[in-house]
Amino acid sequence: MDPFAIMNSIGLVAFALVGSAKAIREEFDLFGITVVGLATAFAGGATRDVLVNRIPLALSSMGEISLGVIGVSLAIGLHRVLSSPDDHPITVISDAVGLAAFTTTGAIVAVDAGVSSFGVVAIATINAVGGGAFADILLDRSPFILVTDFYASCAVLGGCTYWVVAVGFGAESVAAALCASVTVGTRLYAVRSGLHLPTAQSFGAMFEEWFGNSSN
Amino acid sequence: MDPFAIMNSIGLVAFALVGSAKAIREEFDLFGITVVGLATAFAGGATRDVLVNRIPLALSSMGEISLGVIGVSLAIGLHRVLSSPDDHPITVISDAVGLAAFTTTGAIVAVDAGVSSFGVVAIATINAVGGGAFADILLDRSPFILVTDFYASCAVLGGCTYWVVAVGFGAESVAAALCASVTVGTRLYAVRSGLHLPTAQSFGAMFEEWFGNSSN
Amino acid sequence: MDPFAIMNSIGLVAFALVGSAKAIREEFDLFGITVVGLATAFAGGATRDVLVNRIPLALSSMGEISLGVIGVSLAIGLHRVLSSPDDHPITVISDAVGLAAFTTTGAIVAVDAGVSSFGVVAIATINAVGGGAFADILLDRSPFILVTDFYASCAVLGGCTYWVVAVGFGAESVAAALCASVTVGTRLYAVRSGLHLPTAQSFGAMFEEWFGNSSN
Repeated sequence: MDPFAIMNSIGLVAFALVGSAKAIREEFDLFGITVVGLATAFAGGATRDVLVNRIPLALSSMGEISLGVIGVSLAIGLHRVLSSPDDHPITVISDAVGLAAFTTTGAIVAVDAGVSSFGVVAIATINAVGGGAFADILLDRSPFILVTDFYASCAVLGGCTYWVVAVGFGAESVAAALCASVTVGTRLYAVRSGLHLPTAQSFGAMFEEWFGNSSN
Repeated sequence: MDPFAIMNSIGLVAFALVGSAKAIREEFDLFGITVVGLATAFAGGATRDVLVNRIPLALSSMGEISLGVIGVSLAIGLHRVLSSPDDHPITVISDAVGLAAFTTTGAIVAVDAGVSSFGVVAIATINAVGGGAFADILLDRSPFILVTDFYASCAVLGGCTYWVVAVGFGAESVAAALCASVTVGTRLYAVRSGLHLPTAQSFGAMFEEWFGNSSN
Repeated sequence: MDPFAIMNSIGLVAFALVGSAKAIREEFDLFGITVVGLATAFAGGATRDVLVNRIPLALSSMGEISLGVIGVSLAIGLHRVLSSPDDHPITVISDAVGLAAFTTTGAIVAVDAGVSSFGVVAIATINAVGGGAFADILLDRSPFILVTDFYASCAVLGGCTYWVVAVGFGAESVAAALCASVTVGTRLYAVRSGLHLPTAQSFGAMFEEWFGNSSN
């Protein structure tokens, strides 16, 4: 099997599970759970396909939707477990795995479409975080990707890795494996260690500390 | 006239009216009323066209926009009536009619584009509920389609009907008429009788009731 | 240089600055500042390109992203100034200049794509206000374009100007200059004088005043 098909299948099941779990926690009805689950699974890939001028894969292939339905069903089956707080290991790990899988599929499609290096990283990141962000907009909250430290950043790192290895060395399968590993690794490390990025205010303070003497 | 043109015209006027009524209730200025009205009328169809890789019809045909403006003008003319509570019969019926009309146009375009059966139902539903959901996001509220029972579900039923009749029996005009009837019928029935779908929690309870003895 | 390249460069720097300033005020981290800045700069143009069936320019050209990064860096450099209230002259003027520049690029692309006159005005307006609206949705607030008086209206006036001059007289460079001048002029005039549009309620009252005697 090619890397795209494997990563795509993993990502669809994982993200449908994560999205449905979010809707179950909000006590949505079955239709709402299905919509939020499928939206989380498909919105990122659909945006990717629209950006590179393709009809979204999810609309033309029946395999895609079946995988999404499996993820939704899993979430309903596990609803007792998943309705517990957001930080249940099943949810956290599924989310990190889905993030890594979709960063990789996004990077693969973007390199095939012949966009710039920024385009590859941007499409990989949009593919990875677009579904979760869209689900949050549907639920009328600020997309968690903007307030969760080191979430989208992991997809950016993964996308850069893919581009360097696939375009620089021409090794697409190696690139896919490395991209997924870097993304899932940095994400799980960030969750464990509580990594965070500086704000402009702290950045300013840091500069002052470094160069403070010269300006005094 | 072909079914697409008829349904499209009905949907544009009905949804522009419904969207503008929502903006009038929020005491928006005329520009805001026009934007929310036109966004409600056109966002669903524009999303459909982008998904099947076409330039949105609303941007290339002047007839479309005229119909949208008629709906907005109707809403302004009726503003005294429409600024009353959300459940005024004119609003409820226009909304159900627009939902049915756009489910049908979405299904027609999707079958022409050659997507899968899931794709047909998904595009029909997105065409039908996308405008209202987009308007709600513009107004910064959770899209009502996720909290209103049996709204998007009616479009799903209509889309399935279209696919079965049009693809199964090859009768596109009959399919269009049946799709619209099923959608508007189930929607008005749901409004009258207060139908609702189960949540995962109640689903779990139901299963326990059925299979409770075997697990004890 | 052609008008598109000039206007596009101005718009990208100005809107990246405005978007980043918004994120700095919310005390986002550097990743959030960059995302909101680039989203404000690129979302309008990306929507325009998707609507006319092109791969977004920002994904295929490295020049685009460099200009966005310049705007973000400027905002971080000026963060002490820009974290002051929303109505700082640098923010207000950058915003008006970006609005004018993107109205013009939107109109140019739309005329080239051969859409209707409404399509030209719609795409010019979406290009101009789409980035700011998308940033507001990311930050979970109602898009300011719907509540700020005479903001999107300025883009509509600019788009109409472009269409009349470019299509009516065939003078595309003159049209670009006039479109940008009309947009930035009406916008800055509106900020200074506090212009606002009537609501349906006040419109109704006005009509009654005019025709009140005949209906009594």
